[in-house]
Amino acid sequence: MADAGDRIRVDPPQRVKGRKSPTAKMASSRMQACERKRLRGLPILAELSSRAVEKLAAHMSVARISAKTELLREGCAPEHLFLLIDGLVELSTTRSDGRSVAVSILRPPTFFPVEAILEGAPVLTSARTVQPSFVGRIPADRALRLIRAEPQFAEAIATGLASRLSDMLRELKSVRSKTCFERLVAWVLAMHMKADSSAEIRLPYDKSVLASRLGMAKETLSRDLARLAGWGVTVRGRRLTIEDPQALFQLAGIDEVTRPSVP
Amino acid sequence: MADAGDRIRVDPPQRVKGRKSPTAKMASSRMQACERKRLRGLPILAELSSRAVEKLAAHMSVARISAKTELLREGCAPEHLFLLIDGLVELSTTRSDGRSVAVSILRPPTFFPVEAILEGAPVLTSARTVQPSFVGRIPADRALRLIRAEPQFAEAIATGLASRLSDMLRELKSVRSKTCFERLVAWVLAMHMKADSSAEIRLPYDKSVLASRLGMAKETLSRDLARLAGWGVTVRGRRLTIEDPQALFQLAGIDEVTRPSVP
Repeated sequence: MADAGDRIRVDPPQRVKGRKSPTAKMASSRMQACERKRLRGLPILAELSSRAVEKLAAHMSVARISAKTELLREGCAPEHLFLLIDGLVELSTTRSDGRSVAVSILRPPTFFPVEAILEGAPVLTSARTVQPSFVGRIPADRALRLIRAEPQFAEAIATGLASRLSDMLRELKSVRSKTCFERLVAWVLAMHMKADSSAEIRLPYDKSVLASRLGMAKETLSRDLARLAGWGVTVRGRRLTIEDPQALFQLAGIDEVTRPSVP
Repeated sequence: MADAGDRIRVDPPQRVKGRKSPTAKMASSRMQACERKRLRGLPILAELSSRAVEKLAAHMSVARISAKTELLREGCAPEHLFLLIDGLVELSTTRSDGRSVAVSILRPPTFFPVEAILEGAPVLTSARTVQPSFVGRIPADRALRLIRAEPQFAEAIATGLASRLSDMLRELKSVRSKTCFERLVAWVLAMHMKADSSAEIRLPYDKSVLASRLGMAKETLSRDLARLAGWGVTVRGRRLTIEDPQALFQLAGIDEVTRPSVP
């Protein structure tokens, strides 16, 4: 029944090593016709037949959720396969001192945590939205059955995983080969390239998330952003203006192979 | 023709941005019956029907190659889908100062570079063996056709990608949340766990590869290995003896969720 008002059942959390699953009381609903249409338009599902998309939609509930909503907790068994349709999700880990640090930023459209569901393993990172987001979810066991029964869905999942793996390779390359300052410059340039070489880019999340995501302390980011002024980059709130992209390219040249993943 | 003596044709390198593909003059041959049997026994292909494995084997040539053989060069279009059957492969990137640094170590059995082939993109890292290895390869276009035509193969590819993604998540978690010394301790403990808690572990590759793979300078690794003596870890050549694993666990506690990927 496509009843938009339905509050879906929140499964009892499955615990791994005594860690609790996030309660994530998402007020989600079955998909409406317009939402199914939107699903069909997602590049990640472009190769699926209408029949396969309908099958996926039949088991998916969707929700608009606010920023800072926890969706996964590191070490818990995954209860759902999520599909980030719009917004941004941060994957993070907890350090031994209890502080949370970003591992990666997921951009839409992407499924997660596919790897944990395929491996039948606990999730390796926590996940929370860093922007208001639009998210679909399917019970994990049903997602597994769909992957096994629908070759087109399995291929979409493989393509999505390939894209995630490339992002992680870019991230690790950046970590291994660049200083903090060079990583920031490369990130600004990759954002600039993504925004069709616009002179102005908007930080898509808090500076604290950016610092964590670039693997640096917040104070280091503030210092390095100030340092960028010498290369014509000015920061006002979340707005970043690049006066002379060429000067930046000379500072930390990137191309399609060496650019970091963004955002 | 299953002629073991055949030298397979080396395709002209496809160039991306003027970078040359590795010559990789692998003396590879079509698969023999015993090798096909070995292929069927690989966990990554366990879910494939005999027919699907035969289809894969029909297009695969195999080769025993020595350590330090280059298989992929960063920035080149991938010509083959490789299957690492035995041995170890290092993925690396070249820094702006020309030095090569390790990004990840691939352990068998695994396909690579799946992500570049699925995305039709240049490879993001170079790849070379760090041990004598046994490697299969299929022309990239044929691999793509197989993935599209054989649902079981597509699922095997997805499962392999999931495992690679988990390894990369572990790696980035380690980088973001641990100091160099803690990363070394965690790596030693993960190797110890993998070796069924044996008191002795063997470094599977040079110390220079280990340093690079842990994201530290070789001098730092030497200093940190010496420091480990204080916790009962002694190093002789490539042999590492752990006297008191519990003491190490107290130093950098790891569990199934926080352990780094090895080797």
